[in-house]
Amino acid sequence: MVLGHESAGTVVEVGTAVKTLKVGDRVALEPGYPCRRCTACLAGHYNLCPDMHFAATPPFDGTLAGFYSSPEDFCYKLPDHVTLQEGALLEPLAVAVHITKQAEVKPGQSVVVMGAGPVGLLCCAVAKAYGATKIISVDIQPTRLEFAASFAATHTWIPARVSGEENGANLVKEFDLGEGADAVIDASGAEPSIQTSIHVVRRGGVYVQGGMGKPDITFPIMALCTKEITAKGSFRYSSGDYALALELVASGKVDVKRLITDTVRFEDAEAAFKSVKEGKGIKVLIAGPNEK
Amino acid sequence: MVLGHESAGTVVEVGTAVKTLKVGDRVALEPGYPCRRCTACLAGHYNLCPDMHFAATPPFDGTLAGFYSSPEDFCYKLPDHVTLQEGALLEPLAVAVHITKQAEVKPGQSVVVMGAGPVGLLCCAVAKAYGATKIISVDIQPTRLEFAASFAATHTWIPARVSGEENGANLVKEFDLGEGADAVIDASGAEPSIQTSIHVVRRGGVYVQGGMGKPDITFPIMALCTKEITAKGSFRYSSGDYALALELVASGKVDVKRLITDTVRFEDAEAAFKSVKEGKGIKVLIAGPNEK
Amino acid sequence: MVLGHESAGTVVEVGTAVKTLKVGDRVALEPGYPCRRCTACLAGHYNLCPDMHFAATPPFDGTLAGFYSSPEDFCYKLPDHVTLQEGALLEPLAVAVHITKQAEVKPGQSVVVMGAGPVGLLCCAVAKAYGATKIISVDIQPTRLEFAASFAATHTWIPARVSGEENGANLVKEFDLGEGADAVIDASGAEPSIQTSIHVVRRGGVYVQGGMGKPDITFPIMALCTKEITAKGSFRYSSGDYALALELVASGKVDVKRLITDTVRFEDAEAAFKSVKEGKGIKVLIAGPNEK
Amino acid sequence: MVLGHESAGTVVEVGTAVKTLKVGDRVALEPGYPCRRCTACLAGHYNLCPDMHFAATPPFDGTLAGFYSSPEDFCYKLPDHVTLQEGALLEPLAVAVHITKQAEVKPGQSVVVMGAGPVGLLCCAVAKAYGATKIISVDIQPTRLEFAASFAATHTWIPARVSGEENGANLVKEFDLGEGADAVIDASGAEPSIQTSIHVVRRGGVYVQGGMGKPDITFPIMALCTKEITAKGSFRYSSGDYALALELVASGKVDVKRLITDTVRFEDAEAAFKSVKEGKGIKVLIAGPNEK
Repeated sequence: MVLGHESAGTVVEVGTAVKTLKVGDRVALEPGYPCRRCTACLAGHYNLCPDMHFAATPPFDGTLAGFYSSPEDFCYKLPDHVTLQEGALLEPLAVAVHITKQAEVKPGQSVVVMGAGPVGLLCCAVAKAYGATKIISVDIQPTRLEFAASFAATHTWIPARVSGEENGANLVKEFDLGEGADAVIDASGAEPSIQTSIHVVRRGGVYVQGGMGKPDITFPIMALCTKEITAKGSFRYSSGDYALALELVASGKVDVKRLITDTVRFEDAEAAFKSVKEGKGIKVLIAGPNEK
Repeated sequence: MVLGHESAGTVVEVGTAVKTLKVGDRVALEPGYPCRRCTACLAGHYNLCPDMHFAATPPFDGTLAGFYSSPEDFCYKLPDHVTLQEGALLEPLAVAVHITKQAEVKPGQSVVVMGAGPVGLLCCAVAKAYGATKIISVDIQPTRLEFAASFAATHTWIPARVSGEENGANLVKEFDLGEGADAVIDASGAEPSIQTSIHVVRRGGVYVQGGMGKPDITFPIMALCTKEITAKGSFRYSSGDYALALELVASGKVDVKRLITDTVRFEDAEAAFKSVKEGKGIKVLIAGPNEK
Repeated sequence: MVLGHESAGTVVEVGTAVKTLKVGDRVALEPGYPCRRCTACLAGHYNLCPDMHFAATPPFDGTLAGFYSSPEDFCYKLPDHVTLQEGALLEPLAVAVHITKQAEVKPGQSVVVMGAGPVGLLCCAVAKAYGATKIISVDIQPTRLEFAASFAATHTWIPARVSGEENGANLVKEFDLGEGADAVIDASGAEPSIQTSIHVVRRGGVYVQGGMGKPDITFPIMALCTKEITAKGSFRYSSGDYALALELVASGKVDVKRLITDTVRFEDAEAAFKSVKEGKGIKVLIAGPNEK
Repeated sequence: MVLGHESAGTVVEVGTAVKTLKVGDRVALEPGYPCRRCTACLAGHYNLCPDMHFAATPPFDGTLAGFYSSPEDFCYKLPDHVTLQEGALLEPLAVAVHITKQAEVKPGQSVVVMGAGPVGLLCCAVAKAYGATKIISVDIQPTRLEFAASFAATHTWIPARVSGEENGANLVKEFDLGEGADAVIDASGAEPSIQTSIHVVRRGGVYVQGGMGKPDITFPIMALCTKEITAKGSFRYSSGDYALALELVASGKVDVKRLITDTVRFEDAEAAFKSVKEGKGIKVLIAGPNEK
């Protein structure tokens, strides 16, 4: 199966019904399109469509190819000053946009983001664009946190090997969060991070599970109950998310270029996957076989 | 400490600033009043006020006494056709109202309610008042389910000793829930019920934790994430809940009288507590020492 | 051009991709389907799609014909106990469902509905299904109000030839609305009704414009401003409205049959249009040319 | 009666129950406090309380005095780097915060603000803090628009003496607004501006009436209906608005100092009122009689 779902390219052919795009246009590709007919689609939540045609998700091939076909409305024309590289990075940015929308982040709020991988970093940046004034990036790797601080976080924090309740209390104290954080985003999928999330969010606050991890974990359900926390999942992206991701890049609010560690030729794609898996760099871009 | 927080009575004295109540009025008592000054209070979520003065919650005495003092706006004047007994039962009904609001129940929806104790039963009745057309009461005691069916549930179900995933799948199949239930309310606090809740709710659906139980449980966090479930806690009641509880009773939409198993004299209160604890009956009302 | 957009029929042929319907199924027809690709469609508001294919709206023919073609997901299979006649009336009921959703009607609320034509009457019925406990139908024709009272309204009222402010104040007083009605629906399109609507709604309440009338009217804008009213338009129906309309009929919550004044043969359709225009009856159904 | 409701000062005395403030603290004063007991207050909408104690609103004196008494929770302690002058300007900023919240402005959106007086200017700034990327300030005075452009607007526009429909269409065309603006705020109260507002907002968009003007105007009600516009009033400020105003100033997101044209001594207050009324300057601050 062909891999790849973070991509952008140049239009080489358009169908007869296409009105808004022409050959030569540079576009970012939203890698999944829905059935457009089910209850979820008609309700505006196409990410929940059970019949998604999603790149690199069996049985569908991914985008890491010379040519790829996509519906017009899932192609996003890039303005002249936005590069194809930035276009490819709209995908993880759209993930972060969706998570941040789920978290209902509002101006002046405090947001804790668990995990400083690509999605966590972008959640910090999107939370900033949503007006959050205290953005705490949490990770166990100091180098990631250094990057987070230079990128979008206002504060960084390394959790201790103590209970989620204790880590939560320490976070509140160290960053003067009062009753707790307004919103907490888990972009790590790690059990201890999720436990800390519930303990650091304030009464009536929002916690969003964005990162993937173990299917079942030990969870402080009574804290959720008595603090009346709203806990939400976040899955891929939906209506308006890709468009907002593009607007955030085009308006200069989020500098996705800074996440690009390297760009390699198509032939070197396999080596690139391996090196990222080993923890080298944040994002490595692969040039298409038709690119020079 | 004095117990009691589900109560109604007759006004025997009013302060000089009181305008809407007079001696002789029959009122239901909302048993907690907030500081009115914190962020939660000013935002309309007084149930999250850290300085609640709540009956029978230390250091505050409860209402099981001959006389009790309450702020005017936390007394609800009963119409002539609503009895003091019904007034006392506004308390658990307000709990159910708050849970059902949290669950965002809408007309035509399917709602699963875990647990058929007083609060679970009342959640079924409130869900019905909110227009739900499929209301499934789940419990392990057949007699409770019989009562649920006669009270407000459209269907009842006894879970099997299988995994939450399996119970969830069986529920969906048995009651033709399509993608799953629109809303699931846990009024039991039991770990298996909560696990089943997450598995029976549809993509994009709402699950509310209303019942108290173990602080930490094994929880299917990835199902929450990928189905984009909204999980909420529900704690006591807040703005408008008691008033709606009264309206539901006064308009005949919820017949709380049916929950009353017995009425005992003030002197027999202790025996009444014991008998309910032993599982005899749903609600036993205790007459005030000044009542005949 | 062929007229007709309130209709139901029997499936005589299905396309090869159709999965949920088969020849012989009885279905209600949602008379407009959207482009499925624009921002409004993808956001779940297909009633705002600029490229709707809507029956009897030029250049599209209506449904008053022997055969009509419709996408699978805009056909609603009728349960055995729901008649084709009821199916045809899902259209005005879906209009009322959409209006009532816009009005954010909640259990225990007071709702004023201006106009007791078919849509106004159905708004009363849907508001009741949403749990409103005070539903005031307003019209200038006593016979319509008599029907409204027997159908779904809890109270009826004939406005006087005074200002909207005075009519609003009178309504509040007569029906003990306190600060004003929680929600006001204008299903009349008449200027005086709209003016009264704004004056009868409470601070922070919701007013919905559902009825069509003059494009520009004299409007009490400062009352909207200082009372912080939310005013909304309502246009046709969107995601979930037709399905809920069917559920309301199937569950017995709304008895649309009572709106049917007469049923005529296809050949007599023209006479039927004329008689309804003259104010005779509420809804006259026209049998299809293939019906006996 | 004493005037004044935009003010800040230094604490000279505290009551025995006050916990968070002490003599010498510099605070901004939210000039109205509510009854804390009515339905609106308990629901978190204290700006709609019918029993507000609001400065300079009869029978209550204003703040333009040597000493003023205020409840603790309606005083906002200023951080060291925020001046008393900035503190006084939190009042119009809180008005703008409330309007912008009502307008549901989200990142990446287009916002049109009618009127470039103090509140209109601050709405532009708050919309920017909420992440709007296209902010069009509309006024008939070119000098105001120049200031708007230097302050927070991304574009400015002078309306022509044509119909609201024509002005709306021109705005859409000139600023490439597609279907129309996502949100339109009227901070002018002028009839032509309100008419243009309804015509420039997109289908499904939000229009907020913030400015005061004539009680009744000619209003394009059918455009509101068929475009399903949400129209809202905005009245003063409520829960969280003053705190957010302070956070926006303290974090540097809104530079209210730029609105200060002049500062005069207490004795010269009358002349200052007159000069602002004549259109000289934006805000003139009056030093308290105890300030040097």
